[in-house]
Amino acid sequence: MKFYFDLLSQPSRALYIFLKVTKTPVEFVKIDLKRLEHLTNEFKAVNRFQKVPCIVDNGFKLSESVAIFRYLMQSNPNISENWYPKDAKSRALVDEFLEYQHIGVRYPCAIYFQTKWLLPTFSGKPPNEKKVREYENLMIKSLDTFENIWLASDQKEFLATKEISFADILACCELEQPRMADFDTFKDRPRLKKWHEKVKKETNPYYDEAHKNVYDIIQSKGKLSSKFDLVFIYRYLRYIKFKKFFE
Amino acid sequence: MKFYFDLLSQPSRALYIFLKVTKTPVEFVKIDLKRLEHLTNEFKAVNRFQKVPCIVDNGFKLSESVAIFRYLMQSNPNISENWYPKDAKSRALVDEFLEYQHIGVRYPCAIYFQTKWLLPTFSGKPPNEKKVREYENLMIKSLDTFENIWLASDQKEFLATKEISFADILACCELEQPRMADFDTFKDRPRLKKWHEKVKKETNPYYDEAHKNVYDIIQSKGKLSSKFDLVFIYRYLRYIKFKKFFE
Repeated sequence: MKFYFDLLSQPSRALYIFLKVTKTPVEFVKIDLKRLEHLTNEFKAVNRFQKVPCIVDNGFKLSESVAIFRYLMQSNPNISENWYPKDAKSRALVDEFLEYQHIGVRYPCAIYFQTKWLLPTFSGKPPNEKKVREYENLMIKSLDTFENIWLASDQKEFLATKEISFADILACCELEQPRMADFDTFKDRPRLKKWHEKVKKETNPYYDEAHKNVYDIIQSKGKLSSKFDLVFIYRYLRYIKFKKFFE
Repeated sequence: MKFYFDLLSQPSRALYIFLKVTKTPVEFVKIDLKRLEHLTNEFKAVNRFQKVPCIVDNGFKLSESVAIFRYLMQSNPNISENWYPKDAKSRALVDEFLEYQHIGVRYPCAIYFQTKWLLPTFSGKPPNEKKVREYENLMIKSLDTFENIWLASDQKEFLATKEISFADILACCELEQPRMADFDTFKDRPRLKKWHEKVKKETNPYYDEAHKNVYDIIQSKGKLSSKFDLVFIYRYLRYIKFKKFFE
């Protein structure tokens, strides 16, 4: 099985950590988003949506991180059950978060990151402050729900269950993203902070390995290091302007 | 098992149709969103997120339509396999769409509907035309992806598989929503139109039954019938203004 990924993508990092921690045998294939490798015709033949992460398992093509995770669990009976419990009720609680997080966590964190950091970094123009405030409010609401509802139970060490599950890894990776835009999602929310530390502890050294570039950008307060190739950033900018996604 | 729903909610309709078509034994409990029944403390004890749909199965509480669907499949081995195939690859293809649709279909259609129709209807103020155009473009992109990628295969009669699956019901219910804002999502896209007719045919009379109120609003070109209780609409408005979700 080939796993196509780029560690700049949150769900790519989540699956990377999961595959490494569980020692699942796959071939890691890096698709460099900065170099627009996802836009080639060659990669279109791998994933018709031209996104990472995705897999090809002996000719079978699949995208969407959560779908890939479930397929990995079903195809590798040796992976420990804690990641996706077999018991119907525990499994449903993991599923509940995995479905919730798309619009409940991923969207607010990603749109904030894109508006505050990604588009201004690529375009050289200051961020749209009105939109930044709007999306910051949406993200804060999401973080409060995380702190006060998802992490409210004393019965559970982790998000959905007593042991760590894939829900925890996926959520952490999404919550790291806005930190590159200088917003510390884990700060001033004691349950969130404690839970984040536990997830890191359970998944290291792979958690930190997957977040190396992310940590670099956080430490430089959002500034790009010279390792980022400007030529490709400008090409990337042309591409996202063309898509009009952020405008 | 108790199933809490309101047919104004897209995923409530999807699960309602699924439960009726498969004759799954549940107790249907209507939570009237217009009467703010989801905001009572009584309902908060049922679902901490105060949203529909949700279920309570002998004390076990679960929200998120796709998680509920998977739990229903695991708890009712008599439900026909076509809705969620057991074979790992076919199941993964259904999962791929179920995960994609949150941000790929549900979000663009719902935010357009809310901006163009829901907020103006409740507030009495004209829609924000700039935002309507922005969200319309996002929705059109989503519909084009539906027509040209998801429905491109000649090998499949339905979205993910040869037979109808839950992915088809869920997608149709999301695509009905913008029609209440006078945008016909099924028009001028021949594959989408044909597929919609097939899904209706496979799930009727329950599809039409679940969409009765939706059809009424579509036919009246977005105008509310006198059946909608204005007092509660104003209270609902106060609530959504308070939440600042649409602003």
